[in-house]
Amino acid sequence: MRVPVGVSARHVHLAPEHVEALFGPGYSLTPIRELQPGQYAAKECVTVVGPRGVLQNVRVLGPPRGQTQVEISRTDSYLLGIDPPVRDSGDLSGTPGAVLVGPRGAINLEEGVILAWRHIHMPADVAERWGLKDRELVRVRTEGLRRVVFDRVLVRVSPAYRLEIHIDTDEANAAGLKNGDYVQVIIDD
Amino acid sequence: MRVPVGVSARHVHLAPEHVEALFGPGYSLTPIRELQPGQYAAKECVTVVGPRGVLQNVRVLGPPRGQTQVEISRTDSYLLGIDPPVRDSGDLSGTPGAVLVGPRGAINLEEGVILAWRHIHMPADVAERWGLKDRELVRVRTEGLRRVVFDRVLVRVSPAYRLEIHIDTDEANAAGLKNGDYVQVIIDD
Repeated sequence: MRVPVGVSARHVHLAPEHVEALFGPGYSLTPIRELQPGQYAAKECVTVVGPRGVLQNVRVLGPPRGQTQVEISRTDSYLLGIDPPVRDSGDLSGTPGAVLVGPRGAINLEEGVILAWRHIHMPADVAERWGLKDRELVRVRTEGLRRVVFDRVLVRVSPAYRLEIHIDTDEANAAGLKNGDYVQVIIDD
Repeated sequence: MRVPVGVSARHVHLAPEHVEALFGPGYSLTPIRELQPGQYAAKECVTVVGPRGVLQNVRVLGPPRGQTQVEISRTDSYLLGIDPPVRDSGDLSGTPGAVLVGPRGAINLEEGVILAWRHIHMPADVAERWGLKDRELVRVRTEGLRRVVFDRVLVRVSPAYRLEIHIDTDEANAAGLKNGDYVQVIIDD
């Protein structure tokens, strides 16, 4: 039950109206790399501004989605001077905001900044084979000098997913993990 | 078997000759906060320069010791552009260097930059009660949304120590830990 690692650096998902507000009327994102089937890293970057500091060159991910969401690490949050909670993607109620700045404009986001809840993108056939259901929590074991067991890793199941665990840069650095390393899912009997 | 957490931000231990090289002839460090009995954070800070970036206001810890040692996080190492290994304090052979800059001079450190191996400072009486020996490796369990088990945590025993686990900022941020939180030592039978 091995899963390849994808390290998520800080990034932004933009609502369609925010793509236009930041990059200009009628603008479309330019995909440069597929992350999961149908999901991509875009050529475009924005600047994220908090009360204490600034993150430059924050990658935009596409395609645009219903609500703008900024995913940063705890390390980043100290730099910005905001205190976002650990949340699953899309669960943005009550989260802090930030100012996003693009080449053609800026937006004052009221909410939408989170630390991403670590999760596994799991194809439906793998989930069935391993006896796991969508939104189940599992433990994951890593290898190496800094090995850890991550508890409460969220399983997200879809026929469209490619198998991959997404952790943020703090989690990767703490555990000595890099893109393409493998971890092991532990299922208690 | 609960242990309070001390989060180690990036810091520098200086050899006596480097205190003088950076702060001036005859200079003595000024203690501002005790960390462990006899060990302190000093008022003084230095700038650490790598091939790719710079860390400003890096705290000096005292008293001075035999060999200068720079302890940073993996996050910091990407910013500096160097690749230090995970090492126990003092084990500096073959580690990368950096340039240190103080108000009165700079030094070109040939080696001495490490990612600190996470460890527990354990008073001798606690170690005896818990059946642990100096340099033993244990596992440590944390609580909360981002709970983890840290494997291979080094136990360091001395009558002079105050009980505390030292983790770096990446490890603290990945596990959602702050100074004064508690973790649990796990000992396998």
